[in-house]
Amino acid sequence: MRGAFITLEGSEGVGKSTQLATVGAALESAGRTVVRTREPGGTPLAEAIRGLLLGDCPEGMEADTELLLMFAARNQHLAQLIRPALARGEWVVCDRFTDATYAYQGAGRGIDTDRVRRLEAFVQRGMQPDLTLLLDAPVEVGMERAARRKQTGDRFEREARGFFERVRAGYLERARAQPERFRLVDAAQPLAAVSAQVRTVVADFVARWESDCG
Amino acid sequence: MRGAFITLEGSEGVGKSTQLATVGAALESAGRTVVRTREPGGTPLAEAIRGLLLGDCPEGMEADTELLLMFAARNQHLAQLIRPALARGEWVVCDRFTDATYAYQGAGRGIDTDRVRRLEAFVQRGMQPDLTLLLDAPVEVGMERAARRKQTGDRFEREARGFFERVRAGYLERARAQPERFRLVDAAQPLAAVSAQVRTVVADFVARWESDCG
Repeated sequence: MRGAFITLEGSEGVGKSTQLATVGAALESAGRTVVRTREPGGTPLAEAIRGLLLGDCPEGMEADTELLLMFAARNQHLAQLIRPALARGEWVVCDRFTDATYAYQGAGRGIDTDRVRRLEAFVQRGMQPDLTLLLDAPVEVGMERAARRKQTGDRFEREARGFFERVRAGYLERARAQPERFRLVDAAQPLAAVSAQVRTVVADFVARWESDCG
Repeated sequence: MRGAFITLEGSEGVGKSTQLATVGAALESAGRTVVRTREPGGTPLAEAIRGLLLGDCPEGMEADTELLLMFAARNQHLAQLIRPALARGEWVVCDRFTDATYAYQGAGRGIDTDRVRRLEAFVQRGMQPDLTLLLDAPVEVGMERAARRKQTGDRFEREARGFFERVRAGYLERARAQPERFRLVDAAQPLAAVSAQVRTVVADFVARWESDCG
């Protein structure tokens, strides 16, 4: 039986890293072999592409260039790490995936989402995560937490507040459009409550996966 | 009046660098301002992507990853260098362009050319070179010259002979399909004769461009 592909989404400072650990631990407690990975990245070449995407780009990066690089990294990640792991029956937990491209490049930067869709179809050929947890919090909560963490952010983290409002709205719109795949987690709660909600979502999903596929 | 976009194509060892200089000098003699550039590359970011494309990739580069990276570099190059120069009335002479993607990735590696076409349409939106000089020579001539030049080639230059036969055939097929844009140059001739043929092609093109656009 193939493993499940679980993605974690949310903008800066919503606690994705912490909840990635929660998801991994919950799955391992349920007896699953877990591969933890992230986007953009996940293989040496995809991480090198991540370096270009997040690094400074004095000439200015064209919107479509950013999109093509993002999907180049994703194609490599899917072919070399995600699909083989799932085929071996392992569960893949990934920090961000294509929903982030719709939220950041589409809603955030205002790239026509039809252009995102064309590259998504080119690379994924219909493949989608089995479960996506969206950690959602008001933008000021996330920005405050992200600011406490480091002095200067990367090329994305330095964006202005309006950008993150659009990213959040973009994420919520995707969650509303695909309720069977998305689970919304209130990331503005105290940490213990967020983790508890994440554990419940994961337990429900594992039970559903077993009854569907077992 | 916008400038013309001229590309030079051909596989390893056919003398592209030398003839790039011939084209540039011929255009400058005809009073044109010339921008010399190359693919993949042409801007700092596109050159960084070139580094990923030509460098070693121990994990193995997926065919579609290579294609997406190639068009990411091309998108940046077109937006930041080629289109602005043409708009200023300068002439752009480029060492390789999309025909090389069809020849190397399509014919050479056997990637479905429909996948090349999809990304070409995504990035170029119909834009094509105004003139393409194809330097053509039997594969053994080119491989011998390339071998004399350096000990170990890059990721493409280390390909086997059958690969370069397919690349050559792929180039010739494109030239046959688009005779109005392509000019075939016999690169197996002695250097002086190749340069003379290139100068004739360029002079004819400049005259035609002036009568069409002047």
